[in-house]
Amino acid sequence: MLRTHTCGELRMSNVNEQVTLTGWVQRVRDKGSLVWIDLRDRYGITQLFLEEGKSNPEVLEQARNCGREFVVSASGTVTERQSKNDKMPTGDIEIKVEKLELLNASKTPPFTIEEETDGGDDLRMKYRYLDLRRASVRQNLQLRHKMAQQTRLYLDGQNFIEVETPVLIKSTPEGARDFVVPSRMNQGEFYALPQSPQTFKQLLMVSGFDRYYQIVKCFRDEDLRADRQPEFTQIDCEMSFIEQEDILNMFEGLVRHLFKQVKGIDIASVPRMTYDHAMKYYGSDKPDTRFEMKFVELNDVAKGKGFSIFDGAELVVGICASGCASYTRKQIDELTEFVKRPQVGAKGLVYARYNEDGTFKSSVDKFYDESALRLWATAMDAKPGDLLLILSGPEEKTRKQLSELRLHLGNQLGLRDKNKFSPLWVLDFPLFEWDEETQRYHAKHHPFTSPKREDIPLLDSDPGKVRANAYDMVLNGTEIGGGSIRIHDKATQQLMFKKLGFTDEEAKKQFGFLMEAFEYGAPPHGGIAFGFDRLCSLFGGVDSIRDFIAFPKNNAGRDVMIDSPSTIAESQLDELGIAVKENRS
Amino acid sequence: MLRTHTCGELRMSNVNEQVTLTGWVQRVRDKGSLVWIDLRDRYGITQLFLEEGKSNPEVLEQARNCGREFVVSASGTVTERQSKNDKMPTGDIEIKVEKLELLNASKTPPFTIEEETDGGDDLRMKYRYLDLRRASVRQNLQLRHKMAQQTRLYLDGQNFIEVETPVLIKSTPEGARDFVVPSRMNQGEFYALPQSPQTFKQLLMVSGFDRYYQIVKCFRDEDLRADRQPEFTQIDCEMSFIEQEDILNMFEGLVRHLFKQVKGIDIASVPRMTYDHAMKYYGSDKPDTRFEMKFVELNDVAKGKGFSIFDGAELVVGICASGCASYTRKQIDELTEFVKRPQVGAKGLVYARYNEDGTFKSSVDKFYDESALRLWATAMDAKPGDLLLILSGPEEKTRKQLSELRLHLGNQLGLRDKNKFSPLWVLDFPLFEWDEETQRYHAKHHPFTSPKREDIPLLDSDPGKVRANAYDMVLNGTEIGGGSIRIHDKATQQLMFKKLGFTDEEAKKQFGFLMEAFEYGAPPHGGIAFGFDRLCSLFGGVDSIRDFIAFPKNNAGRDVMIDSPSTIAESQLDELGIAVKENRS
Repeated sequence: MLRTHTCGELRMSNVNEQVTLTGWVQRVRDKGSLVWIDLRDRYGITQLFLEEGKSNPEVLEQARNCGREFVVSASGTVTERQSKNDKMPTGDIEIKVEKLELLNASKTPPFTIEEETDGGDDLRMKYRYLDLRRASVRQNLQLRHKMAQQTRLYLDGQNFIEVETPVLIKSTPEGARDFVVPSRMNQGEFYALPQSPQTFKQLLMVSGFDRYYQIVKCFRDEDLRADRQPEFTQIDCEMSFIEQEDILNMFEGLVRHLFKQVKGIDIASVPRMTYDHAMKYYGSDKPDTRFEMKFVELNDVAKGKGFSIFDGAELVVGICASGCASYTRKQIDELTEFVKRPQVGAKGLVYARYNEDGTFKSSVDKFYDESALRLWATAMDAKPGDLLLILSGPEEKTRKQLSELRLHLGNQLGLRDKNKFSPLWVLDFPLFEWDEETQRYHAKHHPFTSPKREDIPLLDSDPGKVRANAYDMVLNGTEIGGGSIRIHDKATQQLMFKKLGFTDEEAKKQFGFLMEAFEYGAPPHGGIAFGFDRLCSLFGGVDSIRDFIAFPKNNAGRDVMIDSPSTIAESQLDELGIAVKENRS
Repeated sequence: MLRTHTCGELRMSNVNEQVTLTGWVQRVRDKGSLVWIDLRDRYGITQLFLEEGKSNPEVLEQARNCGREFVVSASGTVTERQSKNDKMPTGDIEIKVEKLELLNASKTPPFTIEEETDGGDDLRMKYRYLDLRRASVRQNLQLRHKMAQQTRLYLDGQNFIEVETPVLIKSTPEGARDFVVPSRMNQGEFYALPQSPQTFKQLLMVSGFDRYYQIVKCFRDEDLRADRQPEFTQIDCEMSFIEQEDILNMFEGLVRHLFKQVKGIDIASVPRMTYDHAMKYYGSDKPDTRFEMKFVELNDVAKGKGFSIFDGAELVVGICASGCASYTRKQIDELTEFVKRPQVGAKGLVYARYNEDGTFKSSVDKFYDESALRLWATAMDAKPGDLLLILSGPEEKTRKQLSELRLHLGNQLGLRDKNKFSPLWVLDFPLFEWDEETQRYHAKHHPFTSPKREDIPLLDSDPGKVRANAYDMVLNGTEIGGGSIRIHDKATQQLMFKKLGFTDEEAKKQFGFLMEAFEYGAPPHGGIAFGFDRLCSLFGGVDSIRDFIAFPKNNAGRDVMIDSPSTIAESQLDELGIAVKENRS
């Protein structure tokens, strides 16, 4: 080893020891006769010290010539600092340098390697390897490592076996777009990269592996919305001989284990909420339960007073913003503008201030007197000082709009603290989703998701009402995982395909070999997959998943550091038996 | 949970407990009034028992109707067996079945799920999910899981951090063929799948991550030789601020840890051998050191006796097959035929029997009398009863041929026991390899491998003699890992490129962004990668890596289970802006 210690470990107890440290020059401070160097590595920063008249003049000269990000090896004696720095773990000591070896010089980096860097996003992405030197980015990846370690520790302890499933698989027409890989040995044919190991993990259950997991790369060729990546990582799990309750307990256990081990936070238990409840009270299947501000339906108290907008609406629904009666007109206008943005799409916002003195002031005073507004306040459990905010319109749309407003207010009121964690199970998702475009039902989760036994009679009479054995885990308003109990018997599966409008032939073509596998003794099974990048970013209290990926791609799917994708040689295309189309868009 | 216990855990101490087991019907034995079922899951086999007159008649009837591989749930009482089976861990007990629930029926599987199965290779590959039910295949994957676990445990304990590197990267013209992935969002451009994360792990060193590892999928589009897979898994590692000795110690530690934890074998230390020594005494850079049978050069004692074949040969070299003087003429003929096979390519084989009575009999008695042959025996340290086998010809070729013969004899003599493990470091590989075709030197490892400091003067005078800081770990005659100390300074790298015949421009084009990264403070670093599939197969004592991959591909790169690769829709090709060439070969 070129070093005896790292730059993060020396303390007062090491004073007088002879040590050698290696690392990067963070900063050189040259005060004439005194020179300090902050030496940085993955483990911390240690101060080097040299003094004219005491240090070897050549070594002093070397120290003065060190530039930012030079790589050096420094040998010397650990000494107590005269002025200690209690903000850093090594702040009590410094190294009296006796020997300094330049291991490698560095050009001046294009941005400063500091927390408050002067580098913009694009520049830092291009020089990602330099950005990774910054403490916060490094800590993100260290957190990710710990998350993976602890995930494995928990699942290994529960008798799960990690099995690697293939990356070169087969393209399926269902779902999102596949990335494909032309086969040279089988020209004209293509592999696909997996969107998830779904099929393989179900096959492993057929094989009897009864508890499977994998932390695995998945791929989706989608137009990238903000903060999506073409390649992403899942914690993928499946279990046999279980019921939904077993999965919920097992993976609630995982999440509690992660919180305890990684964040030191005790999560007593993960609350559960049905999909219907979530939609009714939060307008979302992934409610942020760090704060309340539940929806209150106001049809009973708001209709029939001559206000035509409410009278003609399918739903009048509101939230109570606690302590916001003092909002200025400008603040309320801002909220109105927020809900009228095309991304939200409301036509307007009705408000009612419940003043501290017990009086009311609303935007619809023309139709509602104080006693009418008091009825709203009572329905919404409002107190003097609160602000009532009400939307109306078609039921589903209005709930979604109010959900956006609720989250916006949550942010504004500081109710969405990144250091507070509120995990939640959302249960009983609908089995089907009506698709306006094709005018038929689609599987909400996937076609192998099992319906609730008691809802099977509804499959014929009212398919939209059939609930699935499907569940999501939500953390702070973000879906972090989801799964289902699968269908494992042929009769139910055939019924399901029929309801989804598949002919026997279509079903066979698309899901043939899995269907065949199910005929050789498939056990009852189910599973879940967690979005690992997102889980890490939430644990890290950071919005972007990109910060938790060592070498991410940008929104155009490009890696700007290595400049990929790129053109390839004609000879390579020839070998693969493919051509790039000339008139490409 | 649908079960209270697994099929592998019940013992005498559980007698009289009420239990529920789930699993697959391995076998039903119906002896008239008595019925036994062997119920199997991932953890073992437990015997179920039913008896006419005592068991519920309906349940008895159900039991009789169970076919092979039916999935059932059986509830009943643990009882002591009348005739115990000490070959199975659950052999002392059986379950008196009170309730039997059919969870899923099964068609008769296309082959028997037994160790001695009647299914051929192709059939078992097509129904891989059934083959995976067989105990030996399952145990292989369990071994692999344990290997991965223990690898992580060791490296985590040594402060390595696992970082995921990207799968969608950039195609490079060097080395083996890349698999490529057309980009829909950047039409006409392609990603490539990584042959290894080499570049990224070196960038992580530049970033300061000083100890990196990853158990990672890699991809190589090669014409598949036997037992190669287009996707394979590596244990990929890199360290900074180290010298070769540190890498050797660290990863010798890994291998010893794996042997101890996975196989219960203590490996005292891993011997080291130079490349030159290995070539001289074993004719191979991956010698199987489970047995000796070293090469002995015989030029001094064999030339100049009028035997023109030896006299005209650059090298006469032999091995001593201990105790084989009694080989029949037929046996020796077989060895001669072996070396004359085109894959080996020798022109003939000279032998000399050193008989038990001290006399000699050779195939070249015409030229060598007893005293001449005795000189051979002395040189080869042979004892009465040994057989001397000698090849001659051009030096390099002859050594390779003799290496093949040595391994062949090792097999024949039972010296290559799969349960004996002989790891070995091979060190000091040459930096360059002369390429006859292009008439120039190529990097033997890769162009970032550093030369030994003391050999740098030879770079100009005798490049072929320059040794690299490169090392392989060999186990039982198979390379299981290899790596090098990298060049980290620009001057040496430029010199290296020059020696490899790159112009500055070519070097920049091919290795541009890595070269640029190296200008911003690259630390001294080096690393190693282990072939994880192969390592698992060697630990499992099995020749084929395929048996240690859950869903392998065949020699044509096909997954016959899912029938991939396959054609994709025209619309998919259109979206990607590519076309399949009509006149494809």
